[in-house]
Amino acid sequence: MSRFINEKFRSLVEYVPGEQPKDGEYLKLNTNESPYPPGPKTRAALRDQDLTKKLRLYSDPDSGELCRKLAETYGKGRTAAAAGQRTAGRPQAGLGPENIYVGNGSDEILNFIFMEFCEGGVLFPEISYGFYEVFADLYGVDFVKVPLREDFSIDPDDYAGCGRTIVIANPNAPTGRILCLDEIETILKTNPKNLVVIDEAYIDFGGESAMGLIGGYDNLLVVCTYSKSRSMAGARLGFAMGAKAVIDDLVKIKYATNPYNVNALTAAAGLAALHEPGYYRENCRQIQETRRWTTEALTDLGFRVVPSATNFIFVTTDRIGGSELYQGLKQRKILIRHFDIPAIRQYNRITIGTRRQMELLVETIDRMLGDADDGAGPGIAASPDGEEQL
Amino acid sequence: MSRFINEKFRSLVEYVPGEQPKDGEYLKLNTNESPYPPGPKTRAALRDQDLTKKLRLYSDPDSGELCRKLAETYGKGRTAAAAGQRTAGRPQAGLGPENIYVGNGSDEILNFIFMEFCEGGVLFPEISYGFYEVFADLYGVDFVKVPLREDFSIDPDDYAGCGRTIVIANPNAPTGRILCLDEIETILKTNPKNLVVIDEAYIDFGGESAMGLIGGYDNLLVVCTYSKSRSMAGARLGFAMGAKAVIDDLVKIKYATNPYNVNALTAAAGLAALHEPGYYRENCRQIQETRRWTTEALTDLGFRVVPSATNFIFVTTDRIGGSELYQGLKQRKILIRHFDIPAIRQYNRITIGTRRQMELLVETIDRMLGDADDGAGPGIAASPDGEEQL
Repeated sequence: MSRFINEKFRSLVEYVPGEQPKDGEYLKLNTNESPYPPGPKTRAALRDQDLTKKLRLYSDPDSGELCRKLAETYGKGRTAAAAGQRTAGRPQAGLGPENIYVGNGSDEILNFIFMEFCEGGVLFPEISYGFYEVFADLYGVDFVKVPLREDFSIDPDDYAGCGRTIVIANPNAPTGRILCLDEIETILKTNPKNLVVIDEAYIDFGGESAMGLIGGYDNLLVVCTYSKSRSMAGARLGFAMGAKAVIDDLVKIKYATNPYNVNALTAAAGLAALHEPGYYRENCRQIQETRRWTTEALTDLGFRVVPSATNFIFVTTDRIGGSELYQGLKQRKILIRHFDIPAIRQYNRITIGTRRQMELLVETIDRMLGDADDGAGPGIAASPDGEEQL
Repeated sequence: MSRFINEKFRSLVEYVPGEQPKDGEYLKLNTNESPYPPGPKTRAALRDQDLTKKLRLYSDPDSGELCRKLAETYGKGRTAAAAGQRTAGRPQAGLGPENIYVGNGSDEILNFIFMEFCEGGVLFPEISYGFYEVFADLYGVDFVKVPLREDFSIDPDDYAGCGRTIVIANPNAPTGRILCLDEIETILKTNPKNLVVIDEAYIDFGGESAMGLIGGYDNLLVVCTYSKSRSMAGARLGFAMGAKAVIDDLVKIKYATNPYNVNALTAAAGLAALHEPGYYRENCRQIQETRRWTTEALTDLGFRVVPSATNFIFVTTDRIGGSELYQGLKQRKILIRHFDIPAIRQYNRITIGTRRQMELLVETIDRMLGDADDGAGPGIAASPDGEEQL
């Protein structure tokens, strides 16, 4: 720490992302990345000669083309079009580009939310995305963490009329559990004076988006990311959808901090991805299928697997401690995510990779648990990159 | 504005970037972009199949490879190696990767600086990068704006022992004037307890970088960008160099706001650019030559051109008002930058493009000034993109 830093930041504890081994010898099931590369159209867009030449010019600070295409894609009610789920009786989204904010990853958007909309304090689940507490600390926001039910589900009644900004990851991480739209709507209805932020990083893996509720609730802000279902964690693209006034506020802070927040390459990739929804939908379907298989296989090994609507599962077993499982797999070159938090210390979060990667994981765990000599070195050549196993 | 925004942001006035016409019919000389595309190695790096496939993975939050290469390039004293200028008697940089922070454009870095290091107030030139005041307002930082000399130069004595964080763009914008290293050193010496930030966005167009002073002054932070001399405004990449403790503080805030701030594509382009320094050096040389030509040509037309060490010139004339020149050229499809600030209302900032673009500019101005009918429409087919004119 330097002698120049502001007093209030001296005790700041920053967020710790999942490990990123530099030697590339690990099977990474620890940061909820997709095992599938971006789609062919997305990748082709990035190889466009004209795009790379034009990097000399500033990117569009409004990300206009991307916002328009996002509005076209999701504006008519994403739920109906994309997931084929019920929307009857609900107001449709009816969103335009003015209802969309595009950010440098959804972390940037969440950062702005805590900076900008939380002077009356914030409420979020006790077990959730660890960054919420870091953001709150950074901006000196008073926060209350709401305990989950014993089964890790969120009780919407805990959020009724709380008088604070509400931030809920739905589906939640690292638990994987999801609230249904009726429950989200209850929270919106009982907090008409407060902003309700639904962080939908994992919504495409089986959940129903709250986007369709935006038309009916001006206190709803839905935050999305390209990092998971759209295989673009390395491109950094997130977006938020909500009432125009709330989006305008996000834009205002962007123009007061970093107007060109989304670079031209990322914007081009993001736009191209919207032209091949089938590719990404099929990946999500595949991941859901692999999740089902992995859940069954681990259950057979004596694990309890929390019901998941995401591209990860949250698991525990009496056969081995949470930290021991994490350490044992790391020794065997498989990374999963363990959180050193009392309530979930017995659990691990495991990203769903390809079927073959998950078979490898299950075999490794099976051998590990059956092996008296737990300290044995790696016996499995895990591929660092799943491309060839798709 | 929404009803959810924090009280303190209600009166916030955001930064206004240069116009970005969407119809593409303008010759853009208003945002100091390079007329030359990124180099062939840089562009080839972006078309790498492996890179686009790996976008499914998070980028390296430490930008390790890029920081190492930046340290290798500049760590031995950029001045001596890159510009062939005097360094005798000065401490050499001797920088390692731990002295380098990589950001999502230099705006992100400046944003962090105002957020993090300015609780004792900040001092910057009255006429300078307009964003400084926006940042200060955003974080409630007390700021003092120091008037320039009448010739727009900065008087280093004004900054001696000021007891505040100091932020100086060197060369300064929009004036183009530069402080020499002796003057920077005076400011550093007389402010040992305060951080001195030198924003070197335009240093490659003829200035001497202060990087070489970092080894001798732990209160120096040098901020650089890829947007100008490296033709990558659209890729969003900036970096800062300073004492390890100061860099650690920037890293800390990054991990508390947006850890994956630099995406994998931008990092790859930034790395590749460091492998073709000759290409970018030649572009800078060309721009300096074109700047000389333009300065002479406009002087011949009766303009006063402020001596510039940048890729733009700051000009005025008695023959036409500042705003009228800007408006007249815009009607003729040429964009330059006019600032509606009393002290410089008679001036315009003009980016140096290719020689042919500048000939077009000079011809257009000549015709405009000689033309009684000032309201005449565009008579010149300006190319929106200078590629083919290189």
